[in-house]
Amino acid sequence: MFGLTILGNNSAVPAFGRHPTSQAVSYEDQVFLVDCGEGTQLQLARYKIKRNKINHIFISHLHGDHYFGLIGLLTSLGLMGREHDLTVYGPSLLENIIMMQLEAAGTQLKFKLNFVKLTEGGMIFSGTKMEVLCFPVKHRIPCFGFVFREKKLPRKLLPEEAKRLEIPANFFHHLQLGEDYHSPGGILIKNERVTTANTPGRIYAYSADTIYDESLSSIFANANLLYHESTYLHEMEDRARERFHTTARQAAAIAAKSGVKKLLLGHFSSKYETLDPFLHEATAFFPNTDLAIEGVTYRII
Amino acid sequence: MFGLTILGNNSAVPAFGRHPTSQAVSYEDQVFLVDCGEGTQLQLARYKIKRNKINHIFISHLHGDHYFGLIGLLTSLGLMGREHDLTVYGPSLLENIIMMQLEAAGTQLKFKLNFVKLTEGGMIFSGTKMEVLCFPVKHRIPCFGFVFREKKLPRKLLPEEAKRLEIPANFFHHLQLGEDYHSPGGILIKNERVTTANTPGRIYAYSADTIYDESLSSIFANANLLYHESTYLHEMEDRARERFHTTARQAAAIAAKSGVKKLLLGHFSSKYETLDPFLHEATAFFPNTDLAIEGVTYRII
Repeated sequence: MFGLTILGNNSAVPAFGRHPTSQAVSYEDQVFLVDCGEGTQLQLARYKIKRNKINHIFISHLHGDHYFGLIGLLTSLGLMGREHDLTVYGPSLLENIIMMQLEAAGTQLKFKLNFVKLTEGGMIFSGTKMEVLCFPVKHRIPCFGFVFREKKLPRKLLPEEAKRLEIPANFFHHLQLGEDYHSPGGILIKNERVTTANTPGRIYAYSADTIYDESLSSIFANANLLYHESTYLHEMEDRARERFHTTARQAAAIAAKSGVKKLLLGHFSSKYETLDPFLHEATAFFPNTDLAIEGVTYRII
Repeated sequence: MFGLTILGNNSAVPAFGRHPTSQAVSYEDQVFLVDCGEGTQLQLARYKIKRNKINHIFISHLHGDHYFGLIGLLTSLGLMGREHDLTVYGPSLLENIIMMQLEAAGTQLKFKLNFVKLTEGGMIFSGTKMEVLCFPVKHRIPCFGFVFREKKLPRKLLPEEAKRLEIPANFFHHLQLGEDYHSPGGILIKNERVTTANTPGRIYAYSADTIYDESLSSIFANANLLYHESTYLHEMEDRARERFHTTARQAAAIAAKSGVKKLLLGHFSSKYETLDPFLHEATAFFPNTDLAIEGVTYRII
């Protein structure tokens, strides 16, 4: 399963029961945490996401509603006896802020805590089946969005057929890469006989906090799911620009321009008690839109 | 009204719906915040305590369950447009930790934020009707408890009698201090005729996190209400000592020794799902004991 669970969908000051930004990206048995606003450890417990499955935490920027919960989560992981490594990706000052607080508390973590400083766009994580890229966005302070990209080999093996033709199992990986097979007896087996074209890897893109920026459409291109901030409604477009945020209508426009399959709106301003107007405004421009609702898991398909 | 509202009663890792330590001490229309664990700003909203009435925040020590919510609260106060001064009393490193995070976010508070570093015991705040003292306790890192002491003048005025005897109103303050009145005509009016002895000021004492320490009984002496940590039950006394914490039985013993009127137990370990055993254990040694329950206001009488 490749899914996204919303732990917080609000901006800045918590309001109307909504929490600050945090999301859990699940892929098979791994959990990647994206941003970590105050109270995230409680939200993880509430929605039964196992904290110990989180090995990578991505922090977009150092506005508090995106990271004030990180120190509490790390401290709790330590108190609960975690021993395996954890890597935090974030802006350069983050490591100092965290280390200063751990030292002030006399906390000695039993697990290795690595920091990766985000300074420019590019690949920041590459696992066996998933890779993560970051890209800079335009906000009031340095800020990065993230793209989660499922890794797939170009060809999909037809194992029964490959076995029937007596291709050894240790050559299967080469078949998935598109190579032909030459048997010891000198027979050529064309790749197309034992593989089919693979479906492309699925993509989840997270805009972080950003001003409306059409140039991001090349980064979001073909994403199966785009989570785009929509702090304000169209009526507050000036305010959005001034605060380097986006409106629901603008989020829909960028989704349309990027050719994504589905748009998820979030990071709602505390001004708004009800969220339906966001959905109403965006669907007029991009029909396949949903509101990011806390506790809900959106499948990336 | 002099009261104490519990915003969080748990230690370390949040558990069983219990939040980390924070308390609001209300006196007339002022609110003093004592400790500020993660999520305190949400708890203040939940229990309808007006954040803007808080002008003084007291942080006992730099274990996260006592202060990780401070940066979020300060940031939110800034975003909500607060303009009046706020003073934070805490260990020396606290100011650096907070300032570093405000700077990383590019936050410019519109209100003046003062820090008072706690380094030794003594009076740290003196208002017109309330004074606050801090005292060092023995914990794994530097840690301070607090005493809130209602200020009262020694004598209580009998205003009707004072008026009948034609004592001018601008002398009333002297009467409350115990002075006699000499009229312009040379008549002596003894203080006892127009005043009665005042009741002593009420006291609330907060133990913070501490190992069992009998020497604190002189500080807690005669408190109307003592909140004492009781992280563990008696069965874990060794663990309590090792972690510089107290058991429920020990909290009751110190309450009895100090001659306090009432004991409130809190800072429960996340090991315990139910809290009744704490009450049961303590009341055997000090009957007037209550559990500190989140959202409940305890009157200091």
